[in-house]
Amino acid sequence: MAKPKTSDLLLIIIIIINAVILISSPPSLASSSSKWTPRFPGHFSRNTQPRLRQQQTSEEIRYETRYFSQRLDHFSFSEHPRFSQRYLISTEHWVGPNRLGPIFVYCGNEGDIDWFAANTGFVWEIAPQFGAMVLFPEHRYYGESIPFGSREEAYRNASTLSYLTAEQALADFAVLITELKRNFSAEDCPVVLFGGSYGGMLASWMRLKYPHIAIGALASSAPILQFEDIVPTEIFYDLVSNDFKRESTSCFNTIKESWDVFTSVGEKNDGLLELTKTFHLCRTLKRTEDLTDWLSSAYSYLAMVNYPYPSNFIMPLPGHPIREVCKKIDGSPVGTSTLEQIFEGISVFYNYTGDVECFQLDDDPHGMDGWNWQACTEMVMPTSSSWGSMFPRYDFNLSAYEEQCWNDFGVKPRPRWITTEFGGHDIKADLERFGSNIIFFNGLLDPWSGGGVLQNISESIVALVTIEGAHHIDLRASTKEDPDWLVELRETEIKLIKGWIDNYYQRKTKVFVI
Amino acid sequence: MAKPKTSDLLLIIIIIINAVILISSPPSLASSSSKWTPRFPGHFSRNTQPRLRQQQTSEEIRYETRYFSQRLDHFSFSEHPRFSQRYLISTEHWVGPNRLGPIFVYCGNEGDIDWFAANTGFVWEIAPQFGAMVLFPEHRYYGESIPFGSREEAYRNASTLSYLTAEQALADFAVLITELKRNFSAEDCPVVLFGGSYGGMLASWMRLKYPHIAIGALASSAPILQFEDIVPTEIFYDLVSNDFKRESTSCFNTIKESWDVFTSVGEKNDGLLELTKTFHLCRTLKRTEDLTDWLSSAYSYLAMVNYPYPSNFIMPLPGHPIREVCKKIDGSPVGTSTLEQIFEGISVFYNYTGDVECFQLDDDPHGMDGWNWQACTEMVMPTSSSWGSMFPRYDFNLSAYEEQCWNDFGVKPRPRWITTEFGGHDIKADLERFGSNIIFFNGLLDPWSGGGVLQNISESIVALVTIEGAHHIDLRASTKEDPDWLVELRETEIKLIKGWIDNYYQRKTKVFVI
Repeated sequence: MAKPKTSDLLLIIIIIINAVILISSPPSLASSSSKWTPRFPGHFSRNTQPRLRQQQTSEEIRYETRYFSQRLDHFSFSEHPRFSQRYLISTEHWVGPNRLGPIFVYCGNEGDIDWFAANTGFVWEIAPQFGAMVLFPEHRYYGESIPFGSREEAYRNASTLSYLTAEQALADFAVLITELKRNFSAEDCPVVLFGGSYGGMLASWMRLKYPHIAIGALASSAPILQFEDIVPTEIFYDLVSNDFKRESTSCFNTIKESWDVFTSVGEKNDGLLELTKTFHLCRTLKRTEDLTDWLSSAYSYLAMVNYPYPSNFIMPLPGHPIREVCKKIDGSPVGTSTLEQIFEGISVFYNYTGDVECFQLDDDPHGMDGWNWQACTEMVMPTSSSWGSMFPRYDFNLSAYEEQCWNDFGVKPRPRWITTEFGGHDIKADLERFGSNIIFFNGLLDPWSGGGVLQNISESIVALVTIEGAHHIDLRASTKEDPDWLVELRETEIKLIKGWIDNYYQRKTKVFVI
Repeated sequence: MAKPKTSDLLLIIIIIINAVILISSPPSLASSSSKWTPRFPGHFSRNTQPRLRQQQTSEEIRYETRYFSQRLDHFSFSEHPRFSQRYLISTEHWVGPNRLGPIFVYCGNEGDIDWFAANTGFVWEIAPQFGAMVLFPEHRYYGESIPFGSREEAYRNASTLSYLTAEQALADFAVLITELKRNFSAEDCPVVLFGGSYGGMLASWMRLKYPHIAIGALASSAPILQFEDIVPTEIFYDLVSNDFKRESTSCFNTIKESWDVFTSVGEKNDGLLELTKTFHLCRTLKRTEDLTDWLSSAYSYLAMVNYPYPSNFIMPLPGHPIREVCKKIDGSPVGTSTLEQIFEGISVFYNYTGDVECFQLDDDPHGMDGWNWQACTEMVMPTSSSWGSMFPRYDFNLSAYEEQCWNDFGVKPRPRWITTEFGGHDIKADLERFGSNIIFFNGLLDPWSGGGVLQNISESIVALVTIEGAHHIDLRASTKEDPDWLVELRETEIKLIKGWIDNYYQRKTKVFVI
């Protein structure tokens, strides 16, 4: 099995902690709030879908939309109505079953599947050279793949939501792939999995749990170690902070010091009105925290999509968006208030097109949303922010987290379940002689890289790590502005995937069934 | 990783079909009945438990019985009452967490766990030399590990039974082992899985699905390929037949020809009464099939427990019990009727002690029994009997099977689920570069060997196959009558397990956590 040539690339296998050593800064005095786990970008799939379609440049994406009748509960024999799972399929470039044409499957994550299809140009671009079928199955409870007849019913309460789990989603993929292969007489065709973010976690877990279904997985920006105490709980916000600090220490400091200003302004008479005006909010602010959470979210998302070229993944943004934010913050005329500086900066994220007249805060961050449910059940990714970060200090508090989940959903999280089911505590030891054919890509600008696999585990479970690169940048369509390291990264991925498939073909010729 | 030395042993890796070529015989005219999948011996655990305790000779079995509060449904967040899972534990020989003492876990199967503990002497015998803790967790819905407060409630209907699945049982083991290790501060201690029959299937599947929890598995007589069309549906009854034919062709022929006699006698006036008398039944026979099914079961069980020494696994039996049955059938005085010959033979199985005055047929073979539920849901192992076997010809009929399951339980089987969830169709190709550290033992006298893994898959996923040897004989306590091949087989297993553990210790010293 080919190993990536480190000499070819800027692939650097390092302990992440080395990358995020932060110069110690004075502690923020901002009060800690009941902070939610940072989200993946799938959240944006429903709002921004139409815009994003235009973004694909290098390859026209053509597919059929189909539906598959799926069992609600794969692991019990309770009676439940089936639901319709949406999947996108293209056989345009597939060389068919006789030539054992590969099947590329993107593991749909927490959003509309057509949004992921539109933002995973890499799979569409490489399918022709592999003669591959392309399949994008949607994750249950998202997009159109909604049980119980309607989103309203499916999201009604903990009982109807209870089948929204990663294991059930993986079983959906397993059943769908198996059935489709049978229908295409393609039982012997190799399946390769792809996924980014939570979809990358699913891709790697699927390779581990269903090796008979897929021969390999490209898991991009998949923080499968962001559970329990496997990585430091501060890692996420430290990495976000580091992204700002590397652009500008003064920008980092302005943000870091701004939280106290928000607090003291918010406590003044008419302070909330002042904040409302300064930030051009559509409705009068009720609590300062609503504004600061909205800002924190933006900083985190900016770090995730800190791509080197203009993009429109979750928002229309310039290339190197954090650089642009910091330019605004640092470049304000002398005498500009801290709040105005922050507003100028954050507008790069929330209003790059300049079309927005007033800003609507996310009023219901803990609402009946699929990912919030997942975070309140299995996907407990403890997150703190340290004194050294640019965020208000916050220590993860499981009791508070549980209380919030109980209030929001009437459910009790199982913080140890994911590591029981999928492992993670000692992943190198567990997998170095078990499993094969997984690529874990992480770009170190991406705050989720802190929970990623950053070291090669074995000859064929490899970590591709780039100093540059944000959230699953490798999976995005190629652009003319792609830096060399990105072009080379994708070439390495293609080479590895080709190796898996070639190996599979070689084995096929000499295996005889027991 | 050590490979078994083939020169040391009578370990012969052969395609099973070669072992069961049967001389063609005149076809039986007996009518086919809606035959049930043959059962594993766990069925007997509740009836014979007290007797079996006496059987352990070589090592005193001492353990504590404890209970663990277990989740009913691991894969959804529905609200359910928890249930108490029984487990047997012995730390008597454990060298403790500081010395990384191994933990030997027997994967409980379809019966009382203390019965399996009493019949798995091998694990108890080898624990001291490994300094290992021994753990026997019970399978949910069996023994005392009953959800919903009582057996009656748990077995009430398809809804209460719906959580009786292999995946849930594996998750029970995973959660229990993880929690116990934490309580013992034994997170770094290596776990080795053991299991026989369905328990062997669970052990191998657990190793594949939870490699982070167990470093290896000894799967004894585990027919993980007895699904769909992976092996011929006739293999089971062909192997039973072959066990009889190798002892005596005339015995085989007498049994083969007996079915027509049963049918014609049964159709006579007072024929059922005649059969009742000849077979010393306690109650008058209602249908000839009840008697022939009772006989077929006995022949199948005889093949499973065709051990070379006296045993008391499912019944008190002499060594080489099929040989003894055939001696009775063949040795009857001239003029003995076929029915009397069969009665003499079968009495070796059902009345070896001579204590039974009349025989009670199994009136309710399709009743509310855990394994029947499992066979009607996931564990669909299609079984036919061919013209060449000694059984009435029968072709597996999925529709009839489904109808029976619907009538018995109100449930529809999922015949393709096990291979979707666990694989099997191309196991060598799937696993030769994925997975490690599994021993599949099969003795070719065991009719379940037809669905076993009989070829090495990789350097560390090995098949140990012996010409002699019946159902998981290797797991039984050693006896003075053990033939050399059995002694050597167990030595090989110990050597392989030791290799896994040594390897683990070596890795532990050089691994650093990511």
